[in-house]
Amino acid sequence: MGRLNINNINPHVRAAEYAVRGELAVKSEELRAQLNRGDTGLPFDQVISANIGNPQQLDQKPITFFRQVLSLLENPQLLEKEDVLINGLGYKTDVIERAKFLLKHCGSVGAYSASSGVYAIKESIAKFLERRDGFPADPSKIYLSAGASSGVNTLLHILAESPKSGVLVPIPQYPLYTATLAVLNATCVPYYLDESKAWGTDLEAIRSSYEKAKAEGVDVRCIVIINPGNPTGASLSEADVRAVIDFASKEQLVIMADEVYQTNVFIGQFHSFKGVLRKMQQENPGKYDGVELASLHSVSKGMVGECGHRGGYFELVGFDAEKAKDAAAAEGRKPDEFYCMRLLEATGVCVVPGSGFGQKEGTLHFRTTFLAPGTEWVSRITKFHQEFMDKYR
Amino acid sequence: MGRLNINNINPHVRAAEYAVRGELAVKSEELRAQLNRGDTGLPFDQVISANIGNPQQLDQKPITFFRQVLSLLENPQLLEKEDVLINGLGYKTDVIERAKFLLKHCGSVGAYSASSGVYAIKESIAKFLERRDGFPADPSKIYLSAGASSGVNTLLHILAESPKSGVLVPIPQYPLYTATLAVLNATCVPYYLDESKAWGTDLEAIRSSYEKAKAEGVDVRCIVIINPGNPTGASLSEADVRAVIDFASKEQLVIMADEVYQTNVFIGQFHSFKGVLRKMQQENPGKYDGVELASLHSVSKGMVGECGHRGGYFELVGFDAEKAKDAAAAEGRKPDEFYCMRLLEATGVCVVPGSGFGQKEGTLHFRTTFLAPGTEWVSRITKFHQEFMDKYR
Repeated sequence: MGRLNINNINPHVRAAEYAVRGELAVKSEELRAQLNRGDTGLPFDQVISANIGNPQQLDQKPITFFRQVLSLLENPQLLEKEDVLINGLGYKTDVIERAKFLLKHCGSVGAYSASSGVYAIKESIAKFLERRDGFPADPSKIYLSAGASSGVNTLLHILAESPKSGVLVPIPQYPLYTATLAVLNATCVPYYLDESKAWGTDLEAIRSSYEKAKAEGVDVRCIVIINPGNPTGASLSEADVRAVIDFASKEQLVIMADEVYQTNVFIGQFHSFKGVLRKMQQENPGKYDGVELASLHSVSKGMVGECGHRGGYFELVGFDAEKAKDAAAAEGRKPDEFYCMRLLEATGVCVVPGSGFGQKEGTLHFRTTFLAPGTEWVSRITKFHQEFMDKYR
Repeated sequence: MGRLNINNINPHVRAAEYAVRGELAVKSEELRAQLNRGDTGLPFDQVISANIGNPQQLDQKPITFFRQVLSLLENPQLLEKEDVLINGLGYKTDVIERAKFLLKHCGSVGAYSASSGVYAIKESIAKFLERRDGFPADPSKIYLSAGASSGVNTLLHILAESPKSGVLVPIPQYPLYTATLAVLNATCVPYYLDESKAWGTDLEAIRSSYEKAKAEGVDVRCIVIINPGNPTGASLSEADVRAVIDFASKEQLVIMADEVYQTNVFIGQFHSFKGVLRKMQQENPGKYDGVELASLHSVSKGMVGECGHRGGYFELVGFDAEKAKDAAAAEGRKPDEFYCMRLLEATGVCVVPGSGFGQKEGTLHFRTTFLAPGTEWVSRITKFHQEFMDKYR
């Protein structure tokens, strides 16, 4: 056996299952390839992929507006020929305006962007949330992610303090949750949806799962709600949403509201957790101020259906981000971090302290790229260095 | 304090540092915003981002061929007007051919693709590797990833069996490695590059770090080589590469060759680990067959510089994948998995067993999407179900 084998890899990775992309999906690709090779020995002449919600593989046409805008972002040179775009290719002026707006604020789509996402896009999302909920939304509390899945991954990573950290997850659920908790070696606390009531969310089922886990020593810290449900398609009534928020508030649970199917409502109406929470806060001043809510959404579902493009966000409400920042700052800086911060403040040149890459004890470095145009900025560094050394030597 | 605070989040996430995107980068954005607001009180009038290799933010123009192809993939309707593309917009026929090839093999870029990547793209990469190394490459051993970073993340996840699992990492290194190992709570075993020899890779330094870690009870299982180096820019000579492979072979270490800078060579020449390994295997039949090598590459660096597009791959050589698959299959199937596999084999319809989403004990379900066009395939399921129940009831 090789150095790495099935018996000595990360057991938590091995434990994770992701049925939507499991053995059956692999087998279906083999069968499809068999048909494509002209094999006529199979009892069917076409493979139907009903395992994964992948509309554009199943002939749903993408929305033209999005795709025209994207074509301009990928090739901004097209904007130099607006007349050809409009008269020769049927592009509308709103497409061209949107592309110009995005290019102005994002720069090249081939560049790295800020870790939490491009601010102008977060502002667009905040406006959408304000229209949807009728309450203000703060762009700086919105984090862009590669689909909602990567947002869930980030949030669960932060929540999972130890193997005892527990997360309430509806069953049936989308396997992302159980798989990620398995990889993180945290505890999944299942609560069952009620099949006899069209897979309704039943607070008593939640409470009894919660009490049982607590009695077993699990540090339950979060409840996941998938609304509308995947794979059940059930939507929570406003009363259900209120009951969950009230319960989470009393038991101090973070609420993770997976709302990626918010435009796929079959019966009833969609009620966002953010909107209902804000209403409850208005009706009961002070009572629900401590509720911590993360709501997720995505471009993959609904009429947009752009799952291949991996776009999503989560919005945080009620978390302690500022305190975390202060605590980190209070931990103090290493000498090369101090140098680099002074350099930035004095010259506007942003480099990276050597301690970020590692260095031999007793040595100090910084790393600079040499991609910025010109060399004037290099002499700014030289001048700063002399002054810094004169002052601190 | 909130339910989640700096003292009770995942301590491994808290321990992870990513200096390239740390406090200085945040501060530099604040200063840039200050300048944009017209603030003239700063001792400079422009912020220089020399912290991260982000060429397109620093005026490096993207390569036209790539961007024209991408514009067609995003908006395939443009291909209906080839004359306008060619005569009105200056697209060349090789651009149009490449776009048609990719659309034929990928389908819509708005669709989910296979977990390990689109096969036709893996074939293109295999051809590139064959040209580069002069040895065959197997597309089925190539895995596409969102930049090399996500490939490193996947590989380290699998390697990290326990806190004692150790990975040899060059210092200075790109912070991705230390940060990911911190999050995984695995052991980083640093080996120092030799600054006095232009940051050369010194086998004696590797060996002594390795022996020391082993003596301390660390299960060292992998060595990371960054070649050419980040942040050092140093390239390994062929003799250095051979020495590392020989050492890894003797000590049974997985080699992770981060070769994302392979076209950024300043002094000397790039020697790929795959190419050198294949040569050594030819020269010494049998001796190096057990070497396990993962090589990574990316579209972010070199003249391509498309870091915003997040494209990368890793190629696996010498791993035991087949045995792992057999072992998994031998673990047996649950009843609903058995049903779904029979359904697929009989009808070509791929659904997901209910156990993948979770279900109450004693109940069995499957999940099907209803996105596939038509309804004929639904009657295939009905017919199968009757036959299955008649047989197994």
